[in-house]
Amino acid sequence: MNEFDLIARLTRSLPANDSTVVGAGDDCAVIDLGLADRWVLFKTDAVVEGIHFTTAALPEQIGHKALARPLSDIAAMAGTPAHALVTLGLRERFDADFVEAIYGGMRALACRHGVAIVGGETTTNPERLLISVSVLGTVTKGRSPLRRGAQAGDAIFVTGELGGSRLGKHLDFEPRLFEARWLAGSFAIHSMMDISDGLAGDLRHMLHASQVGAELLAEAIPVSRAAKAGARGETSGRSPLLAALADGEDFELLFTVASGEAVPLLDAWKKQFPELRLTCIGRINAGSGLTIRDKRGVQTLTAHGYVHFS
Amino acid sequence: MNEFDLIARLTRSLPANDSTVVGAGDDCAVIDLGLADRWVLFKTDAVVEGIHFTTAALPEQIGHKALARPLSDIAAMAGTPAHALVTLGLRERFDADFVEAIYGGMRALACRHGVAIVGGETTTNPERLLISVSVLGTVTKGRSPLRRGAQAGDAIFVTGELGGSRLGKHLDFEPRLFEARWLAGSFAIHSMMDISDGLAGDLRHMLHASQVGAELLAEAIPVSRAAKAGARGETSGRSPLLAALADGEDFELLFTVASGEAVPLLDAWKKQFPELRLTCIGRINAGSGLTIRDKRGVQTLTAHGYVHFS
Repeated sequence: MNEFDLIARLTRSLPANDSTVVGAGDDCAVIDLGLADRWVLFKTDAVVEGIHFTTAALPEQIGHKALARPLSDIAAMAGTPAHALVTLGLRERFDADFVEAIYGGMRALACRHGVAIVGGETTTNPERLLISVSVLGTVTKGRSPLRRGAQAGDAIFVTGELGGSRLGKHLDFEPRLFEARWLAGSFAIHSMMDISDGLAGDLRHMLHASQVGAELLAEAIPVSRAAKAGARGETSGRSPLLAALADGEDFELLFTVASGEAVPLLDAWKKQFPELRLTCIGRINAGSGLTIRDKRGVQTLTAHGYVHFS
Repeated sequence: MNEFDLIARLTRSLPANDSTVVGAGDDCAVIDLGLADRWVLFKTDAVVEGIHFTTAALPEQIGHKALARPLSDIAAMAGTPAHALVTLGLRERFDADFVEAIYGGMRALACRHGVAIVGGETTTNPERLLISVSVLGTVTKGRSPLRRGAQAGDAIFVTGELGGSRLGKHLDFEPRLFEARWLAGSFAIHSMMDISDGLAGDLRHMLHASQVGAELLAEAIPVSRAAKAGARGETSGRSPLLAALADGEDFELLFTVASGEAVPLLDAWKKQFPELRLTCIGRINAGSGLTIRDKRGVQTLTAHGYVHFS
């Protein structure tokens, strides 16, 4: 049983209440606590030594990543993060300076985004360091783009460049908070999420939630230099395009808008964020699958995050 | 460096913001999101296999404990829990039925207290099961008793009976949510917290936060049957009273009120909660230490949670 099957099984019959706007299944939970114009966003995320980072990572990078991941989920909802709690699972022997440097990495990121670290706890996790961060934020009521909002005909956009994140970016990426809020405040974004499991896999989640299909344009996919460098170093013969489709940990925004908005949005983006690439990579359709078009025609992309690509 | 020293070091210079009413250092963070009459409570807590439960525990008990611990912290603030997120750190090989039964234990408790489980995530923690639960709740503005509110002359109360929790209660205790809200709604509770590290250690935290001292009455401490049974089984000769003072994981409420309120409060409590013991165990004073009075006179209680008691 893989992670997605397990989650599907666990979330079948969760207790709910009247104030839950969106429960399990989107980037954040969305809660209506009775504020006049804001919803509350609630998210938790954990990083584990040996899985999300290695012992070669600097403590500041580990702290940065531990907080940046849930902030990226707040970004995916076009939200503003406000408060964080930090749970540290520490090895039996730990170096207090190392732990303080982890906090240093979190503190720097938190300060840039106005996030207060309001507590947490320490426990023992004897074999490996684990950090779980919970974040509370808010978003303008009704202006949080969900995964389920994609519509046939929408243009599909992605920020930045994809693939090869594990060569470095996954430790120092900046969550796209400012960009996401600007997008949701300036255009009718139909659907949005952050890319954590890889473009193909995450887009598949969006299509499933929205009950639509999509076709990507192979030559439009923004392949990162790291994906190209990684492909050169690989003996598997895996292409840079496959890395950009499947690698994961990109933490870029994936979103859709009505096709008529695509050009005005691109123009406005270039003025607002001239340093950050934004690319239209394909189109939502009324089908149910995910296909990719290249010089040889249209092929189907299969499986969760991993694609069998000739 | 012990846990308390590390936390003191990490929380020296945390990023803050205007909406934080109470940050690190109390049972929950308290946040003012702009609701007319409510503050938001925010708490996270983790349980780890081999530390907070053994492999002998039933999965339903593990799930119950994982959620009940942060709910007990919401109770300590006289709050109402509303939403929870669950992070599962699963061993490399896990049994999906076992994991689903963990959720079953959480679900039953969540339903009793109107808590919606609004998502979470699964990750791998190869050597041992870890569950981190984050909870969001609310409390009437200005009616959340903090650790720092104890005043000289206050009567000190504790609910239930103390000690020996690890013989069983720690896996099936009920967080004192109804009782705490009734207390804060009916009386001017000066200070409140839940007992997780042991009465002596936790009361010490309250005294430190309030800059006061206290004297306990040895014969008033409500010693549980489990503490007595545990003491009989021990070769160390540790007394049941010491177990009640130091064992931890009681998850009872510890609170103080002005001495003039003590008798009316006890009378009203007996009518409201006839099944649950409430005991006045001592008095806050203007000093700075924690002492205990028994037949032989007054002795000092020392150290964090552990006392050297003759």
